[in-house]
Amino acid sequence: MAHEQNSPRTLPRRLKGFRDITAAEVLARDAMIARIREVYARYGFTPLETPALEYVDVLGKFLPDADRPDGGIFAFRDEDEAWVALRYDLTAPLSRFVAMNPDLPTPYRRYQVGPVYRQEKPGPDRFRAFYQFDFDSVGTASMLADAECCMVMCDTLEALGISAGDYVVRVNDRKVLNGVLERLAGEGSADAPVSLKVLRSMDKLDRVGLEGVRQLLGPGRRDESGDFTPGLALKPSQIDLVIDYLSIATGCRSAACGDLEALVGDSEIGREGVRELREIDAALTAAGYNDQRVIIDPTVVRGLAYYTGPVFEGVLTFPIVDEQGVARQFGSVFGGGRYDDLIERFTGRKTPATGASIGVDRLLAALVTLGKIDVDAGTAPVLVTRLDQGLTAEYQRLAAELRSAGINTELYVGTQGIGKQFKYASASGKTVAIVVGSDEIKKGEVSIKDLRLGRELSKDIGADRKRWLGDQPAQFSVPCADLVGAVKKVLARYSIG
Amino acid sequence: MAHEQNSPRTLPRRLKGFRDITAAEVLARDAMIARIREVYARYGFTPLETPALEYVDVLGKFLPDADRPDGGIFAFRDEDEAWVALRYDLTAPLSRFVAMNPDLPTPYRRYQVGPVYRQEKPGPDRFRAFYQFDFDSVGTASMLADAECCMVMCDTLEALGISAGDYVVRVNDRKVLNGVLERLAGEGSADAPVSLKVLRSMDKLDRVGLEGVRQLLGPGRRDESGDFTPGLALKPSQIDLVIDYLSIATGCRSAACGDLEALVGDSEIGREGVRELREIDAALTAAGYNDQRVIIDPTVVRGLAYYTGPVFEGVLTFPIVDEQGVARQFGSVFGGGRYDDLIERFTGRKTPATGASIGVDRLLAALVTLGKIDVDAGTAPVLVTRLDQGLTAEYQRLAAELRSAGINTELYVGTQGIGKQFKYASASGKTVAIVVGSDEIKKGEVSIKDLRLGRELSKDIGADRKRWLGDQPAQFSVPCADLVGAVKKVLARYSIG
Repeated sequence: MAHEQNSPRTLPRRLKGFRDITAAEVLARDAMIARIREVYARYGFTPLETPALEYVDVLGKFLPDADRPDGGIFAFRDEDEAWVALRYDLTAPLSRFVAMNPDLPTPYRRYQVGPVYRQEKPGPDRFRAFYQFDFDSVGTASMLADAECCMVMCDTLEALGISAGDYVVRVNDRKVLNGVLERLAGEGSADAPVSLKVLRSMDKLDRVGLEGVRQLLGPGRRDESGDFTPGLALKPSQIDLVIDYLSIATGCRSAACGDLEALVGDSEIGREGVRELREIDAALTAAGYNDQRVIIDPTVVRGLAYYTGPVFEGVLTFPIVDEQGVARQFGSVFGGGRYDDLIERFTGRKTPATGASIGVDRLLAALVTLGKIDVDAGTAPVLVTRLDQGLTAEYQRLAAELRSAGINTELYVGTQGIGKQFKYASASGKTVAIVVGSDEIKKGEVSIKDLRLGRELSKDIGADRKRWLGDQPAQFSVPCADLVGAVKKVLARYSIG
Repeated sequence: MAHEQNSPRTLPRRLKGFRDITAAEVLARDAMIARIREVYARYGFTPLETPALEYVDVLGKFLPDADRPDGGIFAFRDEDEAWVALRYDLTAPLSRFVAMNPDLPTPYRRYQVGPVYRQEKPGPDRFRAFYQFDFDSVGTASMLADAECCMVMCDTLEALGISAGDYVVRVNDRKVLNGVLERLAGEGSADAPVSLKVLRSMDKLDRVGLEGVRQLLGPGRRDESGDFTPGLALKPSQIDLVIDYLSIATGCRSAACGDLEALVGDSEIGREGVRELREIDAALTAAGYNDQRVIIDPTVVRGLAYYTGPVFEGVLTFPIVDEQGVARQFGSVFGGGRYDDLIERFTGRKTPATGASIGVDRLLAALVTLGKIDVDAGTAPVLVTRLDQGLTAEYQRLAAELRSAGINTELYVGTQGIGKQFKYASASGKTVAIVVGSDEIKKGEVSIKDLRLGRELSKDIGADRKRWLGDQPAQFSVPCADLVGAVKKVLARYSIG
């Protein structure tokens, strides 16, 4: 209970890669989350909340950066010297939860929303803490569960006002990828580390194009800045196989399955992957999710190491102009896949599972760009000013009356004079100020100031507009008894309340 | 993208002091938070979200355990060797935010909800991560803001269905406490460390009683287990002063202020504290918050070191029976106070502030005990079973139809037979199962099974009840076109939907 009044000043600063989220974004995000939750619940998912901290070995090393020394996570030793870390996703903790609760009825279907943490290089649009909103079905090997993931993705995006043409769900299967890698190995040496590098080269398709991938698989690639990335020096026949695979037409799901089947040849794992994709296609078709909403796309890889079968992502396809002024697709906002081995890590028992995750912050940014969500700082529309400190009891009564009528109302609780109070009302986005002095008290009136109209009137405006405004004075008095009605009328001018 | 299939098994385990929160509690908590948010917004507070991680020096050492080696927080070194920690409250991060944003219009009024972390000794009812829901007014020295804190506490508890007799808001002032300590020093040596120990002894009043405090201030106290706590060996006149202070009657706020004024004597800081309490009393009285809802209580200390003036707590006064079978008050669910120096630590500028915090988990436990909140696992009420894999497309169609009608519906996506599917439906809390085989398809019908009624009928029940149940068969068929209506009718039996 000692103060630090005389200690040297502390520099107020935030960890790099973290951010403070202010009112408008918190409100818009929570509104978006509520709408998503409704879709997840519609399919029978219920909530779970696991803690932000987990043991490092429980989380496992599945991040794309897991080969970096720090593994891309925020890890430290606890008081017992055990390594603990902030979760990097919600899937690893879910797997831990299921392993600790063997009596859960399955399929166990849960959703979870919350921040996850990654110690990546921060950038202007790249944070170290971001929200994910996951749903998963644990304890089923049926492709119906994977197909349902794709449907939930579609339904969610559409519930948020993004129409079928502006998004697409892309589906692939890790087993198909493995089949191609197997065939690659058949064409010459391609051991596990090379396979991983091949996958990573494929994953760069969006950024470097088909020709770029060809260079990365072969002699290497020099980018526009002059930087050179060494190539994998694969044989031309191997490179052709990968390029053929990446070039498969995605317009028709069943045709894509046929092309993939031909391409994986007699690779057993590859054929199994194609069978899975066909089952997903059949379930999607039966449910009316056509080839425009969900496509089979061999270029989908997904970075997380725990995926074992189908992988999917929801991509927003409408163009945006990025920071460099280049038009591009908005990109991936939803990702997921099947992870049949993640719970077996703990229990030794097969517990197949599949699910998907929304990148909440990215999706919110998209909705804001599209104008699909209200962005409102949620400021109370009314400020009851305190012109005369001696009348504070009266001001409290007025504020209470407005609140009782369901109008969010701030009573000015600062210590400044009335001029500063009006400035505060404007700066904090109020619409109405209530002003009462001893004159009003005597007359049994309150004075109501329309702050927005006041701002309008102080601008240079056309005659027509002025005439319209003229009928609606920016400040007027009403009998005390009419306070609520008069305030509601002013707020209605701006569709508030 | 490598599996860990052949590595040794990982033990699935959770950090001690942390917990997984399952569906019913998440839903109840979120419903409670939504109601609280409405009250906060009604007073003009808007949301802010700061990150869970902060620099240790930015958080400061204000916890009651700050003199322990680890300071009671989860701290570690980041990649730049700087000490960072999980926040232990939401007030220190708010102060950092305000210090970094000097142009905020003030009073800046924000609310924030989220988990905070303390590395305390975990217990059966004591966790290392718990939710707080704060509201604060920053940048005002007016006692009106503190009085408003008390009003918001009352309104919040009442909005949650806790009536005035079942709670009380207790208010004190650190300056009054300091005044008493000053007088104590006047009575003989009582330096800063002793003052801190005196406060801690006072804070134990609830647990050890007035006589126990007297022993702790004097010769020491032996508890029932035989453990001995050494005393502070104060002089009898000093002890009497503290006991007089703690014994002040709390029934009437203005009388309590009078008693406190007499007690602090000519201590300047003490008299200022009493003046503050009188201003709070006046504002509360003007707003109609009487002596039953808010009391002035000299025994309120609050553990956090950053409080400088008024401190308050919301206490639930109805009796509960604790784990030891002893009846006691539920206790504190709301706490707060004024922290005028916390932002000055960063800026060197006076930025007075005040606010309060709900202990969300404790308050939720209280509401559950009182039956004031629905506890519902949020399970989808309907399961569409898959009797015949070949009819999956039909099952998907039925599920989609129910969902379109706004009924949360799970399609069974597991791989087990129909018997296991019914067991799953019961275990996961479904109310209705939809069953369709090739017979039903031929007849254009669906079969609807009322699972709750089925469970009732399988019990030994009275004749009257049986007659009532007899009219409502547990399983019946309807034409496909009547699916939604028939399901709604069954759900209505249980007030679902």
